[in-house]
Amino acid sequence: MIIIMNANATQQQIDNVEKKLFEIGFKTHPIYGDVKTVIGAIGDKRLLSTHDISSMPGVEALVPIMKPYKLAGKELKREATIVKVRDVEIGGKDIVVMAGPCAIENEENYIQAAIKVKEAGAKILRGGAFKPRTSPYAFQGLEEEGLKIMAKAREHTGLALVTEVVDTRDVELIASYTDIIQVGARNMQNFKLLHEVGLTNKAILLKRGLAATIEEWLMAAEYIMAAGNQNIILCERGIRTYETATRNTIDMGAIPVVKELSHLPIVVDPSHASGTWKYVNALSKGAIATGADGLIIEVHLDPCNALCDGPQSLKPSKYTELMNELRPVAQAVGRNL
Amino acid sequence: MIIIMNANATQQQIDNVEKKLFEIGFKTHPIYGDVKTVIGAIGDKRLLSTHDISSMPGVEALVPIMKPYKLAGKELKREATIVKVRDVEIGGKDIVVMAGPCAIENEENYIQAAIKVKEAGAKILRGGAFKPRTSPYAFQGLEEEGLKIMAKAREHTGLALVTEVVDTRDVELIASYTDIIQVGARNMQNFKLLHEVGLTNKAILLKRGLAATIEEWLMAAEYIMAAGNQNIILCERGIRTYETATRNTIDMGAIPVVKELSHLPIVVDPSHASGTWKYVNALSKGAIATGADGLIIEVHLDPCNALCDGPQSLKPSKYTELMNELRPVAQAVGRNL
Amino acid sequence: MIIIMNANATQQQIDNVEKKLFEIGFKTHPIYGDVKTVIGAIGDKRLLSTHDISSMPGVEALVPIMKPYKLAGKELKREATIVKVRDVEIGGKDIVVMAGPCAIENEENYIQAAIKVKEAGAKILRGGAFKPRTSPYAFQGLEEEGLKIMAKAREHTGLALVTEVVDTRDVELIASYTDIIQVGARNMQNFKLLHEVGLTNKAILLKRGLAATIEEWLMAAEYIMAAGNQNIILCERGIRTYETATRNTIDMGAIPVVKELSHLPIVVDPSHASGTWKYVNALSKGAIATGADGLIIEVHLDPCNALCDGPQSLKPSKYTELMNELRPVAQAVGRNL
Amino acid sequence: MIIIMNANATQQQIDNVEKKLFEIGFKTHPIYGDVKTVIGAIGDKRLLSTHDISSMPGVEALVPIMKPYKLAGKELKREATIVKVRDVEIGGKDIVVMAGPCAIENEENYIQAAIKVKEAGAKILRGGAFKPRTSPYAFQGLEEEGLKIMAKAREHTGLALVTEVVDTRDVELIASYTDIIQVGARNMQNFKLLHEVGLTNKAILLKRGLAATIEEWLMAAEYIMAAGNQNIILCERGIRTYETATRNTIDMGAIPVVKELSHLPIVVDPSHASGTWKYVNALSKGAIATGADGLIIEVHLDPCNALCDGPQSLKPSKYTELMNELRPVAQAVGRNL
Repeated sequence: MIIIMNANATQQQIDNVEKKLFEIGFKTHPIYGDVKTVIGAIGDKRLLSTHDISSMPGVEALVPIMKPYKLAGKELKREATIVKVRDVEIGGKDIVVMAGPCAIENEENYIQAAIKVKEAGAKILRGGAFKPRTSPYAFQGLEEEGLKIMAKAREHTGLALVTEVVDTRDVELIASYTDIIQVGARNMQNFKLLHEVGLTNKAILLKRGLAATIEEWLMAAEYIMAAGNQNIILCERGIRTYETATRNTIDMGAIPVVKELSHLPIVVDPSHASGTWKYVNALSKGAIATGADGLIIEVHLDPCNALCDGPQSLKPSKYTELMNELRPVAQAVGRNL
Repeated sequence: MIIIMNANATQQQIDNVEKKLFEIGFKTHPIYGDVKTVIGAIGDKRLLSTHDISSMPGVEALVPIMKPYKLAGKELKREATIVKVRDVEIGGKDIVVMAGPCAIENEENYIQAAIKVKEAGAKILRGGAFKPRTSPYAFQGLEEEGLKIMAKAREHTGLALVTEVVDTRDVELIASYTDIIQVGARNMQNFKLLHEVGLTNKAILLKRGLAATIEEWLMAAEYIMAAGNQNIILCERGIRTYETATRNTIDMGAIPVVKELSHLPIVVDPSHASGTWKYVNALSKGAIATGADGLIIEVHLDPCNALCDGPQSLKPSKYTELMNELRPVAQAVGRNL
Repeated sequence: MIIIMNANATQQQIDNVEKKLFEIGFKTHPIYGDVKTVIGAIGDKRLLSTHDISSMPGVEALVPIMKPYKLAGKELKREATIVKVRDVEIGGKDIVVMAGPCAIENEENYIQAAIKVKEAGAKILRGGAFKPRTSPYAFQGLEEEGLKIMAKAREHTGLALVTEVVDTRDVELIASYTDIIQVGARNMQNFKLLHEVGLTNKAILLKRGLAATIEEWLMAAEYIMAAGNQNIILCERGIRTYETATRNTIDMGAIPVVKELSHLPIVVDPSHASGTWKYVNALSKGAIATGADGLIIEVHLDPCNALCDGPQSLKPSKYTELMNELRPVAQAVGRNL
Repeated sequence: MIIIMNANATQQQIDNVEKKLFEIGFKTHPIYGDVKTVIGAIGDKRLLSTHDISSMPGVEALVPIMKPYKLAGKELKREATIVKVRDVEIGGKDIVVMAGPCAIENEENYIQAAIKVKEAGAKILRGGAFKPRTSPYAFQGLEEEGLKIMAKAREHTGLALVTEVVDTRDVELIASYTDIIQVGARNMQNFKLLHEVGLTNKAILLKRGLAATIEEWLMAAEYIMAAGNQNIILCERGIRTYETATRNTIDMGAIPVVKELSHLPIVVDPSHASGTWKYVNALSKGAIATGADGLIIEVHLDPCNALCDGPQSLKPSKYTELMNELRPVAQAVGRNL
C-alpha cells in the first residue's frame, strides 16, 4: 500500500502516519519528493480493517498495491478452474451453451423447449422458478412447482439445470433440485445470499451486477469462495450506461480482463445484455471469439406469449441457426462446440 | 400505451397487433402516418403482464403512457406524505437530520456519539448492526448485540433509531428494536426483502440503488407499499458515474423530480454520496436548498479509528458547525431546523 | 410524432396543442385514454424546428416516431454503402484492417512500420500528424511535416492513408495528402468540422464520441452527408462508463445496432477502446465475429519509446500473430481477410 | 510517480525500469514488498512525455502523485481568482447571475428580454449567435448579425455579454463583440479552440464536457491558461449518466471539488443540466447553497415559440421569482446577490 501525503503535510503528520502504520504491523518506507511525500507500507492490507489511515491529518490518498481478492484471483491459483456439473465441464476446451425459457410457465411447454434446445446442442437447461421482477404486479414465478417441472425436464433430456435464487430462505430448497444456482445481477451484492450459496456444494452462476466493477464482481465471488464453495462460473450480462439502443451495454472487454485477473470461467448472457433477440446472434459469436467459455441464452417456443422477457427470447429455429453458426467461430478460436 | 410499427410493417401485421390488443381487453386507435403506423391502446397496462406485444412481427417499439407505479405516484394521492416516527415528522415543514456512526463498535462510544449528535440538533440516531461490506474479510457488524446498544442509546437520549437490514431472515428481529428500518442501496432491488419490510409497521428508509433510475426507485417503494406499508422515506445517496473525484455522484436533480412524481418524503445522504467528510458540509446545504426534507449524516467520535467508513465521517465538532450553518439555509427556503 | 398530455390537462389545452400543430402543418389524431390524452401528429418533424410544442401548457412529453437522420439511415437507402479508398473497399465482403503508429515520429521509423503492417496484411496505414492531446504539454504532432512522411510511406508501400484533422483550418491541407480523413472522438460533435470535411471528396472515418449515443453518432454522420459527402466509415472506439479496468468500454452491441439502423460500414478500434495492447487480440476477434467491417489498430516498432499511446500499441510481431488468428474468425462469419 | 511492478516481475525487469527512469532524469526508490515491488520516481512528470514506462516488461501500473495541471491548480496560486468583466466580479463575495435567451432570434425580442433580466437582477446577458446543434437541419444562429444585436442590447442595458464560439475561425470576430467567450460542452476538448481563445484577452466561460472528468475539465482550463489567458470561469452544466428523468445529471459535488483543487471561479447552468424549466428554481438554490459563484440561466419571453431550447427556458416572471427566492439563500451562505 502507498500513502500519498498532501503537498502541505507537515513532518509531524508524516511521522504520525508512519508511527500508526508501524503499530498496526506494517514496515514503512517514506519517499520525499520535491512537493509531496509518499509512504510505502509493506504488510497485509487486512491488518487495516479496523483502522482508517485515510482520515489521518495530511493524508491525501491511499493506493492499494495488492488486489483485495485472494481466492478469486490468480495469486494463489494460476491454472484455470474447470467447473464440473454432471458430465459437463465449464472452463475447459468445450464451449458450453445454457439455454431455455426465462420463466417456467407450464410443464408441457417447458419440456418441449428443453427437448428443442437439447437437439440444437445446449448442455444445460435454464429456467426461472423464483423471478426477481421490477414490478410487484408482474408474474413472480411458479416457485417450488417450477422446480419440480425443471426436475422432470432433466429426467426427460438428461440436461443439467440452472435456476435463480432470490432469497436466503430458499437456498436449501433450490439446491435440492438444481445443478447450478444462479445469483442474479440484482443480488450480486446481497452478501448474505452470497454467503448462503457458498455453504452449498452446488455450482454457482454469478451474474455481474448492473453497475458492478469487475473488481466488485470478483469480490462477490470471493464471498462465496470464503464460505467454502469454489465452483463459480462468472456471467457477464451487460452493464448500465447512458446508451439506450440496447437494454444494457455488453462489456466484452470484461472477458480478457477476467481471464487475466482470475482463474474462474466466464460465460456471457447476450439475451439480457441486449434486451432483444435481434442482436443475440451477433453478440453470441462475438462473445465466443473474444474468449468466453460459454453462453446462456433465452429460448422460448412462442416468444409473443411469454410471461416474461419475450422480446429477448429466440424461437427454437433461430436458436438452432445460431448454434450452427457458432460452431465454426468456436473452432476458429480453438474451441469445441 | 402506444405501439409503434416499423416502416415495413404490412397491413396484416398491423391488423394482427390490433386483434391481439382487442383480445387482451384494449381499445385500439391506429394512426396511419406517411411512413409508419402507430396504434394507440387504451386500457390497463397490467393486462399485458402475460402477453408480449413487442415480439409480434412488425412491431418496432412500445411507448408506455402511464407510470408503472400507482401507490408511490401522485395519481391516487396528491398531498405530501408525512412519515411519523415517534414524535418526529419527516416530510413536513421541519428539516429532519439523522446522524451517528456508520457501525456500532461498542456501547460507550456509541452512546457518547448519540449524546453529541443530539446536542447539535439531530432528531434520529443512525447506526449499523448488520453491515453490507464489499469484502468478506471486513467487519460485518455486531448484529443483535449492536441492536441492544442502539436501544440503550435511545433510552439515554430519546432519539429515534434507524438501522439497516440485509437479510429477509432478520427483518422481524430488527423491527423489534428499531424505529426506522433502512434498506440499503445494494438491496434496493432485493424484492423479497422489500416485500418483507412491507409487512412490518415500521417506517422504511429506502436508499436509491447505486445505478437505479428514479423510476426503479419508485418501483422499489411500490413493492413495499403493495405489501401494505406506506411509511416510506426515500434517500438519495449518490449514483455511479464515470467521475472518480467523489465516490458517487450526488443526483440533486432527483429531489425536484421525486417531488414532482411522488408524494413520499426524500432525504439526502451526503456522506455516502461524496465518500469524504470534506464535501459533506457543502452538499448538506445544497441538498436542503434544493428541497430535501432531511439528511442522514455519518458522525464518529474518532474517524481515524472507525471500523467502517471513517473517511466520510464528521467529527462531532464539524457536525455541530454544519448544523449551525444549515439553520439559515433551511430558513431561506421556508423550512425549520 | 406523439404528444402525451399530462393527466390534468384541460380540454382547452388539448385543443390549443391541436390547433398549433395544425397551423404548423400537421394532421392530428387525438386519443382520449381513461387518464391521459395523447395526440398523434402526422407530418415532417422538421416543420417543428421553429416551434416548441413541449413547452405548451398541459404537455407532458413528445415521443418522436421517425428517426432524426435521413441520409445516414435506411429509410432512403437500404443497400449497404461500400466506401472505396484507392483499390480498397470498406463495407463489402473483405475485412479491412487499418494499422500503424499513433503519431508519426520520424520518417525512418514510420516507413519501417508501414512496411511491417503491410507485410502482415494491413490495407490502410494510420498515422497522426495533428494530435488532440489532453495535456497542452504533451507532444502535439509533426503537422505538415508528418503528412509529407505519410505520403512517402504511401509511395513505398502502396497503402492508402488515414489521418486525423482537429481544426477546420487544416481540412484543406490534410485533404491534399491523405485518402481518409479521421474525425476523432473528441470532435464528433464539432459541427463546423463535420460540415467542413463534408465539403471534401475524401472518405471520412468518423469515430464515436466518448459518451455519444448511437443516435448522436448517426446525426454526426448526417452533418457530413448533408454537406455533400456520403463516404463515411463509422468507428466504434469504446465509450465512457464507470468501469476502470479498461480505458473505455467497447460497445460491441453498437455493431448490430448500426447494421440495423444504417447502411454505413462500421469498423472497431480495439486499441483505444481497451487502452492496453494485452486486450487488443481478443477484442479484434470479437469485433469481427460480431459483424464489424474492419479494424483500426495501433502498431509501433518500439512501444516503450513511443511519443504517444505506447501502452496500447502492438509490436509488429504481435500484430502479425493477430492477423493470422483473425483470418479463420473472418472466414467463420463468411468474410475474407 | 509510483511504478507498480507485477507479482512476477524479475529483478532484471525491475533494474531495467530503474535504469530507464534514471536515464530520463528521475531519482528512484524501490520498495520490495512480500509479493510486489514498487518504485518511487522523483522528478518532473513532463520528462516522461517522450517515453513510455508503462509498456516496459514487468510493469503493472503507473500511479501519478502530482496533478497534471499546474496553472489551473492550487500548487502555484492558492488565493481565489476573481475574473473581472466590465464592472462585474466573478469569484468574489457577489453571486453573479448570467441570463437571457438561448439563441438570438431578432433584435426587438432580444432587447426586451435583456431589459427584463436586468430588472430582475442579472449582471451578464447571455445569447447564442453561433449555435452548436445536434441536427444539421436545426436553426444554426444569426451569426454576426446576432453579435450586432447583442452589442445593441449591451448599449441599452449596460449588461456585459457572454456568447459561444464553435470554430477557431470565428474567435477574432466574436472577441470583437463580446465580453465573455463561452466554450461549450461539446468543444471542451477541442484543443485548437482552447488554444485560440487562450490568445485573446477576453474572459472565458468554460463549460464542462458532457462526460468530462473534473481533471479533464481543469486540463482544458490549463490549455487556455498555457496560451496566456488566465481569466477563466468554469461552468458545471450536468454530466451524462444512465438517468433519463433529467436531460443531464447535475454534479453538485463538482463545486466543492473544484474549490478544493483550483483557484478558478465556478458557476452552474441549471437550465442545460435539467433540460426543463420546472427544475431550474430548485437547482439554482441548491447550487448557490453548495458554494457556486454564480449561475447561467435561460430566460425567454415566449418559451413556446423559441427557436431553440424552449423547454428549459424560464419566462421572465418565473425568472424574477427565482431571483427573489435566491437572495435569502445567498445570504444564508454569506454571499451577496
